[in-house]
Formats: sequence, structure tokens, C-alpha cells
Amino acid sequence: MQPSLPSSEYESRIARVRDTLAETEHDALCLFSSTSIEWVAGFYHLQTERPVCLAVTDDEIHVTVPRLELERAEAREHVDSVHHYYDYPGGEGTYPAHPSRTPETTIDTMLSQLEVESVCADANGAPGFWGYTGPTLEELADVDVDIVDWITEWRKVKSDAEIELIEQSGAWGNLAHEKLASYAEPGAHELWVAKRASLDASMAMLDTLGDRYESHLRGGFPASCGFLSGPNTALPHGLTENRRLQEGDVLITGATANVGGYVSELERTMFVGEPTDDQRHYFELMLEAQSIALDECGPGVPCARVDQAVHDYFDEQGVLEYAQHHTGHNIGMEGHERGFIDRGSDEIMQPGHVYSIEPGLYLPEEAGYRHSDTIVVTEDGTEMVTYYPRELEGNVIRW
Amino acid sequence: MQPSLPSSEYESRIARVRDTLAETEHDALCLFSSTSIEWVAGFYHLQTERPVCLAVTDDEIHVTVPRLELERAEAREHVDSVHHYYDYPGGEGTYPAHPSRTPETTIDTMLSQLEVESVCADANGAPGFWGYTGPTLEELADVDVDIVDWITEWRKVKSDAEIELIEQSGAWGNLAHEKLASYAEPGAHELWVAKRASLDASMAMLDTLGDRYESHLRGGFPASCGFLSGPNTALPHGLTENRRLQEGDVLITGATANVGGYVSELERTMFVGEPTDDQRHYFELMLEAQSIALDECGPGVPCARVDQAVHDYFDEQGVLEYAQHHTGHNIGMEGHERGFIDRGSDEIMQPGHVYSIEPGLYLPEEAGYRHSDTIVVTEDGTEMVTYYPRELEGNVIRW
Repeated sequence: MQPSLPSSEYESRIARVRDTLAETEHDALCLFSSTSIEWVAGFYHLQTERPVCLAVTDDEIHVTVPRLELERAEAREHVDSVHHYYDYPGGEGTYPAHPSRTPETTIDTMLSQLEVESVCADANGAPGFWGYTGPTLEELADVDVDIVDWITEWRKVKSDAEIELIEQSGAWGNLAHEKLASYAEPGAHELWVAKRASLDASMAMLDTLGDRYESHLRGGFPASCGFLSGPNTALPHGLTENRRLQEGDVLITGATANVGGYVSELERTMFVGEPTDDQRHYFELMLEAQSIALDECGPGVPCARVDQAVHDYFDEQGVLEYAQHHTGHNIGMEGHERGFIDRGSDEIMQPGHVYSIEPGLYLPEEAGYRHSDTIVVTEDGTEMVTYYPRELEGNVIRW
Repeated sequence: MQPSLPSSEYESRIARVRDTLAETEHDALCLFSSTSIEWVAGFYHLQTERPVCLAVTDDEIHVTVPRLELERAEAREHVDSVHHYYDYPGGEGTYPAHPSRTPETTIDTMLSQLEVESVCADANGAPGFWGYTGPTLEELADVDVDIVDWITEWRKVKSDAEIELIEQSGAWGNLAHEKLASYAEPGAHELWVAKRASLDASMAMLDTLGDRYESHLRGGFPASCGFLSGPNTALPHGLTENRRLQEGDVLITGATANVGGYVSELERTMFVGEPTDDQRHYFELMLEAQSIALDECGPGVPCARVDQAVHDYFDEQGVLEYAQHHTGHNIGMEGHERGFIDRGSDEIMQPGHVYSIEPGLYLPEEAGYRHSDTIVVTEDGTEMVTYYPRELEGNVIRW
């Protein structure tokens, strides 16, 4: 029940990079994505305009960072050498106390020291984030570059240790959701309910974990929840409004927690007071669609088949026009990860895949209906990560 | 004092795109970045794995969106036509109620309808966000593509209307910071202080703005603050810790608010109780460095000169080794924007540029010292956006 990954997890990831690299003609894997860098080497940083580049060869791991990430990078067990520049854009004549280099020349020097001539990389240079602009990796270093997405692909299958963190996330997310449900009542402001619930759940999480808590956050809540309410629920990606709850509102909630860098997804359709017959009707359609999807999932099952089953049910019930998105997505370090439960997907469910299951119905200008649960695909079926009550009676708010 | 941009702002931006386009041999500007799309057409969306592409020609603006953004895109005054696909990856045989297309074929169809043969674009296809992968724009549509970063460059100079929003952000950020200062005391948890202050400031902001409030948030706080405390302040990009305040702690705070999509930056070095002589010493060095930088700024001034002045002062004082980053950055829609106050920068300060001014000193394993203020460069000098007290006495927390 440790709330962070064991060191052995990174060792096996690094071994996998090296084994895969050995099958190519390349000397190194270069990564610019903060998520991929964290996955391989356990070094977490905020992606900014300042480039960070991790290079993995058959026997070394080096990283290039800005000065302000130096100590944190050096503290990582799996990083052998840290190269740093002062800041971006930088250049000649910078601080004498620091190397006179730019991010780009630092990366070039790192690759030269590693005697690398040809690399695989997740991108041909640093991303144009927060105003960064610069040369491609091929231009800045004298190397051949092949773009690969190994890490994004590998992240689809979670290890036992990762699943353990996602399950812990599910538990703390449940606490945040319980608090949301108990603070919601007519007259209460959306923001007040969501943030008080997030704060109280987060404090309980931090006090419980104590020194075991390993932060992956700058700002944000360790355990968090939020929701859309009233007609705003009809837009699946609606924004936080300036709105107080009213009796008769439909809510679409969401709750999660970040445990050791991993998240889960719990969403519920709830009613402020007794639902109308119409609201019950669409709730039950949505719930049945979700049950159909949950039943369909398992190892060896095409993702497309799960989405098709939902589609067929909505079609039968004559509510296809109210659907606005596919059934779900893989989830882990990021809220959405590759592997989509979509009729156009060629993904096959595998043991270790973790998915959100969240078919929805959206009645224009009235209300939306969507539950989301997180499941793990196992050797012989699936297991639920989230466990908040799904049926209607467990989702009526009374005060 | 409206908390959102007037419609005319978008009209002038669109006119600028068209004027610039007319000087090229291209038929359209294509944008994939959510920030750039919002800047041009006022359509805000959460960037996900689902591609969104805005195309501006000499007389039309079209956008391709996933189904779940359809209503919000159609509601935008400056978007002439919305093309949508159901979901990603999508494909043939998708929902009969929706067009049977993928994101990529939808973008291709949009460009064909616009009779576009050659485009400028901010990227050669949608970014690999949250697991998206797909062809380049050149591959998916039969068009020539030239990569440009017009919007990122233009965003450096803010209009009067944008500056007005940044100033409103500064005021609400000040409220969040006042609340932070009043809730901080020994024994109080970092997270509790930061989030209670953010919630109370946000509720005051929402109750004040009422129907004028225009959300640009999914989750998050309209007005927010946070801080690092104790030895954690020695790492400029440190993470939220599980820590309660103690007498003698140094804090580095941060506060902002999102007003109509624009932000400001206010940061203060504060002391929990009376600072030691050593703490006073480094605080005063930091404050003087910031004053030097603030004095140096103005229209026509090279950004490099401002950063050099800070460098020279730290050098004189023998504390260069404790600096870890340059003096500041442009700010507006994003927390960092292009135009960095860095000795390696060739940027010249112009009226309408908005910058953070934030030189810092970081004593390893002891404490960090940094204020950040937001300034606007005017025709004849600068104006302060942030106005929380800068001097030491205004930054001592007593209880």
C-alpha cells in the first residue's frame, strides 16, 4: 500500500527501453515529453518553455535541464548524469557561475558525450510550449532522428504496481465524491461545494499518508472533485459556471486523486431532490448502456466491440441523437491515455489495460446523463477500481 | 470594467490574420493550438486527444471539432461554419446520426470546401496530446503547408482591452493573496491555507461579477493562490508538500486570477514571524534586484539589458551562485508567454508588452527569496499591475 512506485519499476522500464533500442540501429532514445521522462526515469518536472531532454543509451541515462531543475534531477536514483543550462533562451556571456550555453547546445553536448550518432526520439526537438521555439533535434545535434512513440504505446498496459496506485486513487476519489454529495444542497454554490469537498478529502488523504505522501502536484488538490449542474450538464465539456444549486438540478460529477502520479476517474449523474419521470428514464438508459459496456469488456475483446454494443443499445432505444462521444479511454498518468473505446479503434483489450467506461446521453438545453467508472482488464475478466453506488437511489441528494 | 473582451477585439485580430495572409501566397491560416484558436476566434476548448482545427481564409472562418464541442463552437459569433466528426479515432461505420468521418477526413473536407490549396499553419497536424497520433496536415489534406508562429508573436503586444483584463486579474489576485496572508499561521497546513484563501477570493470574485463572469475554467479556481514553505522554497519549481507552517518559515507565494482568459502574476517572499538577520539580508538583496529590474524596464529597452542589470547587481553582492533563473517573461493568456527577460534574448520591450519581474535567490536547503510583479510597458515607461506591498514589513506574518 505504498503510495508511490518502487524503484524496481523504473529498472524494468529502463531495461525495456534498452532491449527495444538493441533491436534498432540507434544509439539512444531521446525524450522531450515530461510524462515520458517521468515514466522512464522517475524525474517529474513541470513542462515549461525551458527544454528538458532525457537520453537513454545502452548503459547510461543523462538528462538536460534548466538550472532551476538541477537539484531535483540530480536527486533521482535512475539518472546517471545531469547537464544543465542556465535559462531559455540563454546564450554566450551568461552567468559566469553557470555554463555559458543554451538549452540546444547543452543537449548537443550531452549527446556528444554519450557518443551518440543516431537516436530514436518522441519528437524532433522540444515542443513549442509557452512560447519556446528552436531547431529540430537533427539540426541542433549532429544525429539522425527517428520518431517513435514507444512510451505512449507501452503505457497502455499497467503493471501491478501501477494498478495498485490507480486503486488507491479510486479510494481517495471516492472520499472526495462522498464529501461532494454531502455538501451539495439547494442554494450552495457549485464552486464552494466542489472545492470544500476537494479540500476536506485532500486533508484526510495527506493526514492519512503522512510522510509517505509523494507530491506530483504544483497547485491542484491531491484528491479532487467537481461537477457541472443544471442545463450546463448537456455540454460534456462545459465550463465551471457561476451558479448555485437548485432543487431539480441534474449534476454530472467527477472525482479523482493523484497517488504517486496516477489517477482514476469516477463520475456520477446525480439529482438534487427527487428526479422527474423523464430524468429517471434517461438515467436508466444511461445506466443500462454503462452496464452493457462493463459486461462486454475483458481480455481479448476489441475496444470497438464495446463501443458498438453501446451504440446498438442507444439505437434500439431511439436515443442515438443524444450521444456525443465514444465509450471510454485508457487512463493512468494522464486523465486520457492512448487506447480509446471507439468503434474506429483497432485496440484489443489486454490484461493491465485500465479504462474509463462512460457512455453518455445529452438532451440539448435540458440535462446530460453520464456515469464514469474505472476498470482494470485482468487475465480472466475485469475488476472495478471505482465503487461509488451506480444505481439511481444512491445518487439522489436529499437535505 | 467588463471582465471579457469586446467583440471588436476579435474582429481586429481576424483582420490582422487576413492582412498578413494577403502578403503570402497562401489561401488560409490553419491553427491546432487551443490558445491560438481562442485568440483568433474566441472559441475556448480544452485541448484533448480530439483534434480541433481552425481555418481562416480571406472571407471565411471554419472550424473542425469533435461532436462534444459542436454547440459551443456554433455559438461563437466569429465562426462561420462548424464541421464535426463524432470522436477520435472514429472511422467508417460510425453513428448513423453523425457524419461517418474521422477527425482527419473532416479537416480535409473543410479545407476542400474552402478551396484551399496552400496554407500557413501553427503545426503540421494536431499535436500528440493525450495519446493522439495521426498524419501531418500535408498528408491528410492535399495542401502545401508552411509553419508560422504569427499568433505567438502577435500575442506579445497586448491591446488596451487585454491589459484591462490583466489589471482586473491583478486586483482579484491581490484579494487571494490578502486572504493567504491572513490565514497563514504556525500549525496551519500549506494546502488548507492556500485553498481556503483561493476559495474565499473566488467566491468574492464570482459574487461581485455575477452574470458578467465568463468562465474559462474547467476545474481550478477563478482567483487562486499557493505557496512553497520552509526549505522547499529553495527549489523554484518545487512541489506542493504535506507540510504545516512553523514559526521561522520563509514562504514564496503566488497569486493570480483568470479574468476573461487572462492572468497576472503576483509572488511574495513572506516570513512566518520575525525574520532572522540572515533572512532580512537575502530579502533585501532580492528586493533591490527587483527594484533595479523594475527601474530598467521601458519602451525600447532590450530585455537582455534588464536581466544583465540584475546579474551585475548579484555579481557585485557576491550572490550570483544563488541565482537560478532569468528575470521574467511575458504573460497574458498563458502563465508564461514568448518574450523572456534573459541575457540571451534579442527581444526589445514595446508598449503593450506585459512582463513578470521576478529575480530570485535560492540558498540551498535553507530558503528561497523571490518577489514577482506584473508590469505593463507603456509609451513612456511602465505601470505596475500588481500592488501588494513589496517591502519587508508588509510581508511579515504575525498572529
